[in-house]
Amino acid sequence: MKPVIIEKEEIIKLLDFKEIISVIEKSFIDFSEGKLVMPPPQDIVIEEFRGETHIKSAYVEGNDSYCVKIASGFYDNPKLGLNSSQGMMILLDSKTGAPKCILLEDGILTDYRTAAAGAVAAKYLARADSKNVLVIGSGIQARLQVEFLLQVFEIQRLCVWGRNEESVKNYCDYISKFNFLDLEVLTTVQDHKEIDIVITTTPARSPLLSVVEKGAHVNAVGADMPGKQELSPKLLAKAKIITDSTSQCEKSGELQHALQSGDICLKDVHAELGEIVSKTKKGRESSDEITIFDSTGLGIQDLAIAKYVYEKFINLAE
Amino acid sequence: MKPVIIEKEEIIKLLDFKEIISVIEKSFIDFSEGKLVMPPPQDIVIEEFRGETHIKSAYVEGNDSYCVKIASGFYDNPKLGLNSSQGMMILLDSKTGAPKCILLEDGILTDYRTAAAGAVAAKYLARADSKNVLVIGSGIQARLQVEFLLQVFEIQRLCVWGRNEESVKNYCDYISKFNFLDLEVLTTVQDHKEIDIVITTTPARSPLLSVVEKGAHVNAVGADMPGKQELSPKLLAKAKIITDSTSQCEKSGELQHALQSGDICLKDVHAELGEIVSKTKKGRESSDEITIFDSTGLGIQDLAIAKYVYEKFINLAE
Repeated sequence: MKPVIIEKEEIIKLLDFKEIISVIEKSFIDFSEGKLVMPPPQDIVIEEFRGETHIKSAYVEGNDSYCVKIASGFYDNPKLGLNSSQGMMILLDSKTGAPKCILLEDGILTDYRTAAAGAVAAKYLARADSKNVLVIGSGIQARLQVEFLLQVFEIQRLCVWGRNEESVKNYCDYISKFNFLDLEVLTTVQDHKEIDIVITTTPARSPLLSVVEKGAHVNAVGADMPGKQELSPKLLAKAKIITDSTSQCEKSGELQHALQSGDICLKDVHAELGEIVSKTKKGRESSDEITIFDSTGLGIQDLAIAKYVYEKFINLAE
Repeated sequence: MKPVIIEKEEIIKLLDFKEIISVIEKSFIDFSEGKLVMPPPQDIVIEEFRGETHIKSAYVEGNDSYCVKIASGFYDNPKLGLNSSQGMMILLDSKTGAPKCILLEDGILTDYRTAAAGAVAAKYLARADSKNVLVIGSGIQARLQVEFLLQVFEIQRLCVWGRNEESVKNYCDYISKFNFLDLEVLTTVQDHKEIDIVITTTPARSPLLSVVEKGAHVNAVGADMPGKQELSPKLLAKAKIITDSTSQCEKSGELQHALQSGDICLKDVHAELGEIVSKTKKGRESSDEITIFDSTGLGIQDLAIAKYVYEKFINLAE
């Protein structure tokens, strides 16, 4: 049996926001309850060309497929007219190891599953009446996080802050297709008022956000490797902290900094998101508390979205 | 640019023994002289189905491609009429990370590059007049090692020993196509006489071979992970030891056992094969000495053979 090969253009046509949220929501339960195989990532760093490739793999016991993801970031690619993100996902048959499907996705499935995880977190952690959103950053993740959030909340006002003026302008042009949104560009991050949900999506390596209002929820998406940081440890100290994987966030997420500075300790982490989705632990308990979702990205989310695309492709082909 | 996809049947048609020996010979020099990126393998073990997947990657500075290999062994596959070996190699562009080629090779390129490494080792280490060969094991590697060796030596007599009678019979049927070979099946390994080159190719976990004659060369191919062993440490103590990678052989090759038992210490290792190929160190120095090549398999060999197949495919297509 030769593997099915699905190209990026075909993959994009198959993606449905609501379906992906549901698939990723389920993957958080699998992560908390299932018997997993998720080896540490393999990293190939090509210094001469400012490139890096990370290989993440995941298997959930009982699942008919497992996933290997090759995801690269080559930071000089835009000069060549190419995306920085490159890569593919490969589904393998759990019983035989035979390749079932190669998804030539160039990193977009990582973008989608990350944004969907943000929507799942907000669904369980933000106030149900949330309507004012602040997004920090103006790249692909800043777009997708908002598009996924729109599936869950009736957002009315969207504030955006970004370092690069042209990129913020492009962001606004793109977002203007949601003409019901009251769009506002902030000159400084701290300028924001009456914000219910904050989403941080930058590759920053020092805090951009130190204060949010009572009752706000924060999706901290940017920090996903050692050294990256968007939130002040003081903000974490005031909040109820939920992680995608506490052990991974300790090394790669916002947790790394707040733990190191001593502003929090490990027992201050309230839960992993899967425990809240599966109702093992409580989510938001009052309209006053600040909640933070520390998101670093899990191999099991890659498995979930790869399998979703593959099965949808096969069903449509039949 | 979409990656080129090459299927197993097409790959097999492209493989030329002499060319592969030359490509692998060069890769040993790259290994000893080049600036390499070869991260530790990523291992995914799926216990329920007796399966394991190992991901090996390699990049050599200045090379226009780097390689990711997904190689699986699922030991119940033969019951399903499938090969135990499954997998693929992926070539990525060193400047951009973009996938250039996917080789759906099901593990055969690993088989070929391993056998070619044996021929390279024998070329530099066995006596030039070698004509009597003993092969231990009767699987695919026992076939290919002999086929590659035939490119380098005028073998006249081939002795074979294997645990499984039927498999040895199939081996002899296959090898009988080389009708100039005087073929002999041994009932015990120690039975052999006047053997110039010994090749061990089994998955054994305790010594099968403890004695060889003066002047013999041994290709120790089977031991390629912790726990595997085909040679007695006493035999290593009597021999000039050459490895593919000393640091890897310490963990996964015959070295692990001989070091642990104290029969040798690390300074007894004479050289890595690349140092001999590049003439930095001497190979065989007398017709009396016993030489042993401890082969564990290198990611750089995967890169070399994947690149060879890809370039040959592209050149033929043009």
